[in-house]
Amino acid sequence: VKVTAIAGGTGAAKLLRGLAACLAPRDLTVIGNTGDDAEVWGLYVSPDLDTITYALAGRLDTARGWGLAGDTFRCLGAMAELGAETWFNLGDRDLATHLARTAALGAGAPLSIVTADIARSLGVDARVLPMSDDPVRTRIRVAGATAAGDDWLTFQEYFVREKALVEVLEVAYAGAPRARPAPGVVEAIAEAELIVICPSNPVTSIGPVLAVPGIPAALTAARAPIVGVSPIVSGTAVSGPAAQLMRVRGIPVSPVGVAQAYAPWLGVLLIDSGDRACVPGLLAQGVTPVLTEILMPDHEREVALARRVLEAPGV
Amino acid sequence: VKVTAIAGGTGAAKLLRGLAACLAPRDLTVIGNTGDDAEVWGLYVSPDLDTITYALAGRLDTARGWGLAGDTFRCLGAMAELGAETWFNLGDRDLATHLARTAALGAGAPLSIVTADIARSLGVDARVLPMSDDPVRTRIRVAGATAAGDDWLTFQEYFVREKALVEVLEVAYAGAPRARPAPGVVEAIAEAELIVICPSNPVTSIGPVLAVPGIPAALTAARAPIVGVSPIVSGTAVSGPAAQLMRVRGIPVSPVGVAQAYAPWLGVLLIDSGDRACVPGLLAQGVTPVLTEILMPDHEREVALARRVLEAPGV
Repeated sequence: VKVTAIAGGTGAAKLLRGLAACLAPRDLTVIGNTGDDAEVWGLYVSPDLDTITYALAGRLDTARGWGLAGDTFRCLGAMAELGAETWFNLGDRDLATHLARTAALGAGAPLSIVTADIARSLGVDARVLPMSDDPVRTRIRVAGATAAGDDWLTFQEYFVREKALVEVLEVAYAGAPRARPAPGVVEAIAEAELIVICPSNPVTSIGPVLAVPGIPAALTAARAPIVGVSPIVSGTAVSGPAAQLMRVRGIPVSPVGVAQAYAPWLGVLLIDSGDRACVPGLLAQGVTPVLTEILMPDHEREVALARRVLEAPGV
Repeated sequence: VKVTAIAGGTGAAKLLRGLAACLAPRDLTVIGNTGDDAEVWGLYVSPDLDTITYALAGRLDTARGWGLAGDTFRCLGAMAELGAETWFNLGDRDLATHLARTAALGAGAPLSIVTADIARSLGVDARVLPMSDDPVRTRIRVAGATAAGDDWLTFQEYFVREKALVEVLEVAYAGAPRARPAPGVVEAIAEAELIVICPSNPVTSIGPVLAVPGIPAALTAARAPIVGVSPIVSGTAVSGPAAQLMRVRGIPVSPVGVAQAYAPWLGVLLIDSGDRACVPGLLAQGVTPVLTEILMPDHEREVALARRVLEAPGV
């Protein structure tokens, strides 16, 4: 079955590892969020694309959920000595990815080609596509000025530097109105036999993808069933600041809110067995709920959840 | 005594370590060659300025003569996997220097400020100045095309990639006619009580410095004695391709040739005791020869040679 998955970072990486274990690698296409992309030390860093690529290469540091397993941080230590900002952790081998990407982008290559080249070099057979070759950047407006004196933060400033501890007033996707889907994105949605919305933050991981003009329409027009996995369990996010950001957007912090964020094209939503109370709300929105074990603490559970996705009603 | 030294890389680093051991740190100013500067993986690399700075910080890998002692090469290994050119070795901690410099230059800071900031961060009290904030690049024209198909090579392509094994036809200093001495360079020459020409390649280490308009005139006008240390011993270079490049320039590969390259302002030249035969030739050029032990295999000999420089006739 040809699967196209829309993915953010850590949570998505788990499900993607599970899907990769169940599918022929060439049957998996991943459309990754680039709203978190950032410039660090002058380098173009793409946290979600890297997490996806490293996960599919079997190299992700699964304990941290980002970066390369076994990486060292010697350059980071030297940067600190030189007085550089070091709140964003870049490992020594991870740096190579950012250096290679920055150089290739600087030479005029689009992000989609650079991403494919990096994935191929790391031995990934699945297709990894950025949502867009054009810059879309998630911006978070926070209450009061931060220590750095700004009120509109980049996602990494909000999430990594401020540790998501500041009050959020507003989320925007800068550049989105002018962005076009990257080559292959609309086709991957149209030609898929199953579309998976990974258990990622609906506001800052899947939200930026859906902010790219043409992508929601492609999802609405898709012939394949669209199956999501809820990133919310028992009223809180499995990881990250999804709950806070959904609240800011006025979306209920529950699987019902997730379904609302993915209306009208979401067909099925996998939710945790403990969230049985959400079933009527999902049915009322026309979304078929599937109750299952949502958490993926190990690879076995990643594969088990991927199987449940592949066996969802209508697939 | 206030000393201003003109320096290339490896050989200069040894003498500078010796001088630093004999002087109050603030009495030492080093004018470094930037003709070897290169872009590697999109980063601005300044091999001679870094060798000088690392040497004065006590951090140079003295066995290799470049890079930081104890550095690792994990990013380099990852770059190789990504298909990048890896003939130029950049260590993981060394990378921080290039990242910080590239970011600062990109933000509009001149090389002289960036160089001073890096030196200060690494605990260097001596002053390290680039010869110029403007780009001057040594270019080497070689016979026949190299494997890469080019005949005008950058210095690093010639020296590191081709290992100086190709026949050289011509050496040029691209950009030199439009370059200005960096702020402080002319003053450091004018105000010095002793000017030292380090034992560096006269063509590709000291040559680019002398190609910057205004620097030869400053040397000619200087009130301080100018004392050189020969990089040539017994008709060969102590290290590197100086002999081949002097031949291309039509300069004898001997201390006499070195004196010729530094006419008319060189006053004293320290030469190896074995090169006694060059004494008449030097005297004929008006240069006072000092016979001594030129090689610096250990720190004791670095200090001993520095003392000989500081005791040279006229100082």
